Amino acid sequence: MKRAPGGLAPIVAVGRRAGTPLHRQLYAGYRDAILDGRLEAGQRLPSTRALAGELGISRMPVVLAFEQLLAEGYIESRVGSGSFVSPGLAAPPPARSPGGTRRLPPPPLPIASSEPWLAGSGPFRIIQPAVDARLARTWATLLARRARLSSMRQMMYGDPMGLPSLREALADYLRTARSVRCTPDQLMIVSGSQQALALSARTLLAPGDAAWMEEPGFSGARDALALAGARVISVPVDADGLDVGAGISRAPSVRAAYVTPSHQYPLGTIMTAQRRLQLLEWARRAGAWILEDDYDSEYRYDNQPIASLQGLDPDRRVIYIGTFSKVLFPALRVGYLVIPHDLVPRFRRVREALDNSPAPLYQAVLADFLRDGHFARHLRRMRAVYAERRAVLVRALAAAGLRVSGDRAGMHVVLELPRGTRDRELATRAAQHGLWVAPLSACYTGRSRSGLLLGYGSARVQDIPDAVRRLVTLL
Amino acid sequence: MKRAPGGLAPIVAVGRRAGTPLHRQLYAGYRDAILDGRLEAGQRLPSTRALAGELGISRMPVVLAFEQLLAEGYIESRVGSGSFVSPGLAAPPPARSPGGTRRLPPPPLPIASSEPWLAGSGPFRIIQPAVDARLARTWATLLARRARLSSMRQMMYGDPMGLPSLREALADYLRTARSVRCTPDQLMIVSGSQQALALSARTLLAPGDAAWMEEPGFSGARDALALAGARVISVPVDADGLDVGAGISRAPSVRAAYVTPSHQYPLGTIMTAQRRLQLLEWARRAGAWILEDDYDSEYRYDNQPIASLQGLDPDRRVIYIGTFSKVLFPALRVGYLVIPHDLVPRFRRVREALDNSPAPLYQAVLADFLRDGHFARHLRRMRAVYAERRAVLVRALAAAGLRVSGDRAGMHVVLELPRGTRDRELATRAAQHGLWVAPLSACYTGRSRSGLLLGYGSARVQDIPDAVRRLVTLL
Repeated sequence: MKRAPGGLAPIVAVGRRAGTPLHRQLYAGYRDAILDGRLEAGQRLPSTRALAGELGISRMPVVLAFEQLLAEGYIESRVGSGSFVSPGLAAPPPARSPGGTRRLPPPPLPIASSEPWLAGSGPFRIIQPAVDARLARTWATLLARRARLSSMRQMMYGDPMGLPSLREALADYLRTARSVRCTPDQLMIVSGSQQALALSARTLLAPGDAAWMEEPGFSGARDALALAGARVISVPVDADGLDVGAGISRAPSVRAAYVTPSHQYPLGTIMTAQRRLQLLEWARRAGAWILEDDYDSEYRYDNQPIASLQGLDPDRRVIYIGTFSKVLFPALRVGYLVIPHDLVPRFRRVREALDNSPAPLYQAVLADFLRDGHFARHLRRMRAVYAERRAVLVRALAAAGLRVSGDRAGMHVVLELPRGTRDRELATRAAQHGLWVAPLSACYTGRSRSGLLLGYGSARVQDIPDAVRRLVTLL
Repeated sequence: MKRAPGGLAPIVAVGRRAGTPLHRQLYAGYRDAILDGRLEAGQRLPSTRALAGELGISRMPVVLAFEQLLAEGYIESRVGSGSFVSPGLAAPPPARSPGGTRRLPPPPLPIASSEPWLAGSGPFRIIQPAVDARLARTWATLLARRARLSSMRQMMYGDPMGLPSLREALADYLRTARSVRCTPDQLMIVSGSQQALALSARTLLAPGDAAWMEEPGFSGARDALALAGARVISVPVDADGLDVGAGISRAPSVRAAYVTPSHQYPLGTIMTAQRRLQLLEWARRAGAWILEDDYDSEYRYDNQPIASLQGLDPDRRVIYIGTFSKVLFPALRVGYLVIPHDLVPRFRRVREALDNSPAPLYQAVLADFLRDGHFARHLRRMRAVYAERRAVLVRALAAAGLRVSGDRAGMHVVLELPRGTRDRELATRAAQHGLWVAPLSACYTGRSRSGLLLGYGSARVQDIPDAVRRLVTLL
């Protein structure tokens, strides 16, 4: 460690410290001395030759450091006289005296401490799909092929609406399998249903607008609406789906309604045809938008997947939102919106301000996965896997005298508990016993029902009976 | 093509059309007939056996179709009597008569028709980096390795803050090369600087809050502020960077200021040390936040990259935003924020409502790229490439008597034109002549200067002289 001589202030510590070149050390030392006021405005600096000599280092790092100080305006150079500290930088050096207030508005969303049951592990984590070795292998093969094809052109900015080949393959799938009316130009690829919700809310709602939200419901949707500045009106869900009549009596004229008609989250109910028509008729009268979140209805066990609400709507007032996080795997980060044709420019404009075009690589791999028939095979295989897990789970619970609901589709069931049961405490205790269950009451904002949400997507058949035994003991 | 018998309304067209199974055709036909009112509430449907016989098809598709109609609530089953159309679905069938208003609030951002010069091609596209064969090859190799390593665990949800290994490698880089003070837990990985800007604006500003914006400036930042509901105050930029004094006289007490101190976009100026301190001192008094957008300052030609503003700030009021879109390639979709420690929970909460965790694959590849030294080599190589392109461009323009500014860093220069020159028209004509140039006036919201922004990131040395000749002809 060497030091610049005292007579030539400042005392700048330099040495062959790991990772920091000498010229950066000198630069930082002088900069700090100027900002601290140890070197005063107009004060003359030693010549680079003299300083290098004093420090016993070569002249080059000194020259580099001084050039940098000059470029950033800390010192000035006068021809024939040398370098001087620039005026107006210190006395008092404000940036070096910490303090000062930082004004924060109220947080746009309440910041809660993390819920203890989220620290769980083990079976029954909700909305966690099975990712098996076969999917991992197929995906890795397609990915490696695309990686090798990775061309310079593909490394540039892409289409903000998403990769055209993926949108075509996806439009085919949605028309055939989900009864969604769409063409590829209505499809926008995003990074998951959460982004789709945030984007839709911000595009269709002005701050202060009211929106219906399912109660109980998906907190991510509630957050997306709240983040857009919406006044969120909770509307109860019953066995037929969203209670449209209750919504009308609470707030008839809102700007939008959020629904999960194909498989209500979390209750698992399916919105009846009558309710669907009632919802569309209300929306028509109110001039409202409908956000249809179809997050996992590909997996349905007693019938074909339920047809989308969007396909029933002739008025182009439904925004259909889907995701591959549940049906393939979460790390894919690909979701999509089906947007009424005339609103595409508006959505696109907001999308580009929120985020740029999505990364094209995974989109290209996903397009391959759809086109080559892997997706259809994966769905068939997973439907069988989940059907078995579901059957084993429901049977094991029934053997313990427990009945579940919401088990006709998706990847979770609802185990209702007697009113007043403290399901949050139960879920927290379950987490301590190697079970990852979510309390039903956490999906409510008002008066809640008690229960546990049990996901079977990632629970292996052989683990389920023992996990149920442990759960029953806790109950 | 066969038709269901008239006596058994409705007339449902079924046939072996490509792609649609018989049961889906039957389902859709009956559903539409119910919604249209052709089948009335309570009307009895034929038995599945009878209908199959009439249509001359096997019974299975009919059973499947009826089960689906039952599941969705279009028909009801009465034990011993058969199936009936559910009550309350038709008369009048609202969903089948198009119309009704759809209430839209004013768009959150003005929707402009696409600027004609954006349809250009050829040299001088701004903010377009060089992606050469060597980068493409290295990237493909690392990507293929990670793709093979793709494990089931990596296919699940990731850390919403970003992959820990990437955050560690990035924090090392930012501390060493950009003088950013940070630890990995302050770093949040996002999908690019646009998402970082939108997230920061939404997290730190309440709707109606005012914010300083550079004039001229980056329209994406302006959009992000506007989308958060901010009142955007334009503050002029001069040769020393943002004119802090002008900002104070226009609106002294705003919530935040957006700046590009290391390389102003679009003018290319570097904010002087004096202005930096003045900005920090103002922010301290005003209790304001500073959004530092450091989008391309890795490329600097006469000195080391300029030290970040964040590193000068002891008050934790700077949000530092960076991206790999310019320094590596745009399709990567990886950007980042350095967030003051105490604000991490707030940012994280908003991030999760806007979007979920970022796709881990590219993060893992990027972490490899940084750790294995590829990034440092790439920067050195590209700095030489760009320095040559810049020199050739500046020389060719000088030979035609044209002087540029803002050429000390980054990947573009500014060619100022006499006041009153219609630079938008010029850019549009250039696009018709195979040149992609951007008009300077488009970066202003008020009184503007005329000029052209010439990007040399993706312009090959051998193409530059001829492109300049064509440009000079247009001028």
